[in-house]
Amino acid sequence: MHEIITCLFDGLAGIGRGAQGYTRPSYSHEEQAAHDLLRGAAKDLGLETTTDAAGNTYLTLPGRDRAAPRTLIGSHLDTVPEGGNYDGAAGVIAGLAIAADLKARGVAPAADLTVMAVRAEEAVWFPTSYIGSRAALGRLRPEELEVRRSDSGRTLAEHMAAAGFDPNALCGGARHLDPAAIAAYIEIHIEQGPVLQAANLPVGIVTAIRGGLRHHTAGIDGEWAHSGAAPREGRRDAVLAFADLAGALEQAWDRVEADGGDMVLTIGKAYTDPAQQAFSKVPGRVDFSLDIRSTDDAVLDRLETELPKLTDRIEAARGVGIDWGPRARSAPAVMDPALVDRLDAAAGRLDLARIRMPSGAGHDAAAFAKAGVPAAMVFVRNDHGSHNPDEAMEVNDLVSAARVVSEALF
Amino acid sequence: MHEIITCLFDGLAGIGRGAQGYTRPSYSHEEQAAHDLLRGAAKDLGLETTTDAAGNTYLTLPGRDRAAPRTLIGSHLDTVPEGGNYDGAAGVIAGLAIAADLKARGVAPAADLTVMAVRAEEAVWFPTSYIGSRAALGRLRPEELEVRRSDSGRTLAEHMAAAGFDPNALCGGARHLDPAAIAAYIEIHIEQGPVLQAANLPVGIVTAIRGGLRHHTAGIDGEWAHSGAAPREGRRDAVLAFADLAGALEQAWDRVEADGGDMVLTIGKAYTDPAQQAFSKVPGRVDFSLDIRSTDDAVLDRLETELPKLTDRIEAARGVGIDWGPRARSAPAVMDPALVDRLDAAAGRLDLARIRMPSGAGHDAAAFAKAGVPAAMVFVRNDHGSHNPDEAMEVNDLVSAARVVSEALF
Repeated sequence: MHEIITCLFDGLAGIGRGAQGYTRPSYSHEEQAAHDLLRGAAKDLGLETTTDAAGNTYLTLPGRDRAAPRTLIGSHLDTVPEGGNYDGAAGVIAGLAIAADLKARGVAPAADLTVMAVRAEEAVWFPTSYIGSRAALGRLRPEELEVRRSDSGRTLAEHMAAAGFDPNALCGGARHLDPAAIAAYIEIHIEQGPVLQAANLPVGIVTAIRGGLRHHTAGIDGEWAHSGAAPREGRRDAVLAFADLAGALEQAWDRVEADGGDMVLTIGKAYTDPAQQAFSKVPGRVDFSLDIRSTDDAVLDRLETELPKLTDRIEAARGVGIDWGPRARSAPAVMDPALVDRLDAAAGRLDLARIRMPSGAGHDAAAFAKAGVPAAMVFVRNDHGSHNPDEAMEVNDLVSAARVVSEALF
Repeated sequence: MHEIITCLFDGLAGIGRGAQGYTRPSYSHEEQAAHDLLRGAAKDLGLETTTDAAGNTYLTLPGRDRAAPRTLIGSHLDTVPEGGNYDGAAGVIAGLAIAADLKARGVAPAADLTVMAVRAEEAVWFPTSYIGSRAALGRLRPEELEVRRSDSGRTLAEHMAAAGFDPNALCGGARHLDPAAIAAYIEIHIEQGPVLQAANLPVGIVTAIRGGLRHHTAGIDGEWAHSGAAPREGRRDAVLAFADLAGALEQAWDRVEADGGDMVLTIGKAYTDPAQQAFSKVPGRVDFSLDIRSTDDAVLDRLETELPKLTDRIEAARGVGIDWGPRARSAPAVMDPALVDRLDAAAGRLDLARIRMPSGAGHDAAAFAKAGVPAAMVFVRNDHGSHNPDEAMEVNDLVSAARVVSEALF
């Protein structure tokens, strides 16, 4: 599998190359070029190729029973701005390598094996999630076709139409994929964190995709005052209130972990108002974001219950107002336990060291799981995280992941 | 005194009026116009007028013994950008009102009474403190003449020369005032905090001007990572480290206050890097400032000793690096206890409710105290703080402060 994988990554590296990394926006000509590259390779291998109304590409190795529920192996081909060459593409290329390997070995799968190149997974372009996979499943709401791309300002429907696809059909509820006709959706993806690298493991079997409790635009209002002249009593210091809140959230995290719960908590942004802040001013405003993720909806419920209590205590103690702004909640997606067991067992038969682990970031597999399709993921060891030009995946590790999937399913 | 005070504030209100407030930069033509206004009024009253090499204006009511150490009543006439009409000017105008009142009543003081209009007190223009008063006392260092004004980029020496004064003389160590020849320096100033307003008191007697322990450009370096994919162990979260540090500093403040110490602590700026921050990133950097003030050098020493211990604990516990940047230390200036007692007693004889209180902000009185001159200050009730167009001082309260000073000294 090594040759085809290396060859396809080399081809992809010529598409959307920028100053530092790769930029292939959702529904851009760069994304299209990536789909064309994979379709061309599939045709060379003799696979069937199809495109749906949303522009997703399907590359099919026919099975012995063409009417049987098929297996999908997929991921996306768009990137974040100045991203890496592996996030997304690795899963599509690995799928094609699996199909090519089966074909080379003369193995016809029991049912169709379809490699799916998904459109528009990176939420940085359009402010909604899993556009391509949800469109394929008929689960994109009509109003979502009106969201606008962050760089162009044009709507999703406009971009789809300009790229030659059919947003009107999607609007009418058309779906290319019937969940009942899919036996499994498998996604191979580089790990976006350091766990596998640190543990020196080539692959991880994903057990669940974390859901989230998110406040993108929260803030604390205190009162600006002179740092020398304002006495402590009477101060309404937004920074000290923020520090109190952050400390209390960290303690809530401690309690969840003490109870054995899965959770991560991140305050990615926190800042005093640049227009008003000064060394010698008691700070009157802090803006911040809060990103809480868990594989367990009950943990998110628990935090959602604790936030108002924390808010009341800190507002009362410090004379500030905490405005949480809009709250976004996404449900965790549990991977299919039987598929997880099969993938884990297959890795065992291949003598591959691996762990079971949650995925903190979202993936198209979550959209399939929510549609009732048995879904699973295999993570591939990767250094330096993802969404940056320094993504560092070894092709040998991707081959290992592909072998695990092939061993488990065919 | 009410009439002359009102008249002079009205005259001043025509100088440097901007969109919202008053802008009279240090060594600007607006500052000069304010000095000219006060000098003209003093001449009309028959006072002697002098100017020194730094442009400070002296308006003198001769005493019975012209050789005896004189009393100075002074403050400054420059403002911050878009500041109020009272910060600084109130003290000069009140001084002139005291001299006018003595003259009108035919009272010749035992020694000369000199009203001093000080140059360049607002540190927002030149990055050094108490320029006019220290120049008058021969305590401005030659290199300080080379600091540059924040708006023009030209040096203090250039601005002084352009305004018609003599920086070369200052460079040679000339001084207009001999501390031994000054019996007292008294400064009347609006309170820059809300204490008198909240307590419904017209005046306060200042006991000391707080010194400071300052870190203008501190920062915490952690490591950027994916908020979903990075596990808790291994995270080096700069925001949570900052919250821990801020909480610990607040506890140190609690302990100082529990021991009866005077202290205020302000983190006026705290922000994740705008270029790199993201909702879904573990934050890798927080920049912040720290402003600790106290009337007691021992409290500043104590905090300076505690900071490295806190730093070590948090760096070790959280895998971050705390860089404090340059440290600036300024010594508290204690007001002359005998003068404080005399002012307090005078207020008592006038049946004025008052308190003794520290000054959190710096004032020219600190420069005189440090030069060995017995110095004292009277604060005047003021709403909405200072350094803004909404400064709200009642002329009646300023008259009360002037009467306290006159009653105490003449």
